[in-house]
Amino acid sequence: MTGTRPDWIAVDWGTSNVRAWAMDGDRPLAEASSDKGMGKLAPEDFEPALLDLTRGWTDGPAKVIACGMVGARQGWVEAPYAMTPCPARPEGLTRAPTTTPGLDVRIIPGVAQSDPADVMRGEETQIAGFLARNPGWDGVICLPGTHTKWVHVSAAEIVSFQTFMTGEVFATLTTQTVLRHTVGTEGWDDAAFDVGLDQGMFRPERMAARLFSLRAEHLLHGLGPGAARARASGLLLGMELAGARPYWLGREVAVIGAGKVAGLYARALAAQGTPCRVEDGAGITLAGLSAVYDRMKETT
Amino acid sequence: MTGTRPDWIAVDWGTSNVRAWAMDGDRPLAEASSDKGMGKLAPEDFEPALLDLTRGWTDGPAKVIACGMVGARQGWVEAPYAMTPCPARPEGLTRAPTTTPGLDVRIIPGVAQSDPADVMRGEETQIAGFLARNPGWDGVICLPGTHTKWVHVSAAEIVSFQTFMTGEVFATLTTQTVLRHTVGTEGWDDAAFDVGLDQGMFRPERMAARLFSLRAEHLLHGLGPGAARARASGLLLGMELAGARPYWLGREVAVIGAGKVAGLYARALAAQGTPCRVEDGAGITLAGLSAVYDRMKETT
Repeated sequence: MTGTRPDWIAVDWGTSNVRAWAMDGDRPLAEASSDKGMGKLAPEDFEPALLDLTRGWTDGPAKVIACGMVGARQGWVEAPYAMTPCPARPEGLTRAPTTTPGLDVRIIPGVAQSDPADVMRGEETQIAGFLARNPGWDGVICLPGTHTKWVHVSAAEIVSFQTFMTGEVFATLTTQTVLRHTVGTEGWDDAAFDVGLDQGMFRPERMAARLFSLRAEHLLHGLGPGAARARASGLLLGMELAGARPYWLGREVAVIGAGKVAGLYARALAAQGTPCRVEDGAGITLAGLSAVYDRMKETT
Repeated sequence: MTGTRPDWIAVDWGTSNVRAWAMDGDRPLAEASSDKGMGKLAPEDFEPALLDLTRGWTDGPAKVIACGMVGARQGWVEAPYAMTPCPARPEGLTRAPTTTPGLDVRIIPGVAQSDPADVMRGEETQIAGFLARNPGWDGVICLPGTHTKWVHVSAAEIVSFQTFMTGEVFATLTTQTVLRHTVGTEGWDDAAFDVGLDQGMFRPERMAARLFSLRAEHLLHGLGPGAARARASGLLLGMELAGARPYWLGREVAVIGAGKVAGLYARALAAQGTPCRVEDGAGITLAGLSAVYDRMKETT
């Protein structure tokens, strides 16, 4: 990147990690990341952490746009939530306190919903990135993850959304309970996934019994760790699909993500007669940060 | 206990703890316990642990009847499961290998069910104790705990049963996920419990969203830790009640246990129009061990 001074710096600052890009307009010139996530920092630690991470790109002065948990109450500075319905292109950024002359850091607000109560921080920027790539798109965006978001987007607004903490429930129950002796950390079985999916969709109330059954089938009938893992995954995902039905039924659905998990959502939705497109999540946060930067340029 | 030599020794040997009673017929003369549960012992450690625990009651020779995880595959010796339907008074005890002359240790088998696959170890002895106190009883016994059992008992047989690992799911999700910042380890709110109960009974598929809502309501609306705890508890118990409906609907129900948890099951069942009796669980395992001892005396 020698010789080129970036126009601005884009930052995706999550709970566990932080990632920054030196930007020339919409084009990344360089990239850096570290494990100095929000969870490890006190408010006064953010500025030095950012300067450390971007050393060589600037001698201090810079325009920075950041998204994610950096704007949480326990972050650098609280960036108050935008309340739904709200523009799917974030606005109302909060300036973080800095001591370095010329350093201007703006944090993108998360989005909150009053009833049913729900919050997101970071996903709003992925949504902005998706819309930048797919202008005028109308429908439901599913962002699978630890806390999966189902988001209804219409006329460039986030109309409503719902979070299912299915990913964290799966990870915790399969590793921190008696199931850890039964459910493998690897291995898979598509047929077992489909069985679990049906159990979760049609008899969600039996969850705690179906889970214990995995243990019993292992003891009595030799159920293998990969099949147990796939069935538990299908069970919990089936419950989520049944719970999120008002979101996906009869709507255009896009699943954002790459690899295994996005594929499971697509497979499960297809089994309900809802085809969806899978949009690769790589670069989508950066596209969202860029969209916000472009907008700020227009309006200033 | 000086001067009286026990007829036999009763042992309740679980995963975490072991408890023994010196018995004169059905009457306990002395009691001892330690934390040398099955989980901490290799097969060869059980005999010394038992001799340690019962020192002073006998100089070695003794008749011992034990129940619980001591008979698991990883225990002292595997006591193969009785398969349902099976007598609700355990039979077919397995003799544990011993080196002390005159020491005769018999382990009560657990009960297993092939389809849906399920297992119990220890609860069969509590059921035997309940039936010893309530001869001829017919109906459903609910044994709340980490892994709650619903057991259909008729004509002195265990006809079928189902385990819901609701207790472990609750404990794990409220302490090992993002909910630990929101859900208190103490505090309670009956009204919040009832709201959660309805959510779980009637919309179990939304579990992973309802749980995340606790976090969001805490952030947005100041939901307190006691109310969050009660609502999470109601939600998961409501799901279990809906899942176990074939067990309790239109049947005589007895909940075995004392204190808070048994009371919650009773309250939840009453809200569904199913009154139940709550039988204090204190001493019920010992009553079951005594019933087995009496039976062995009759048949030898």
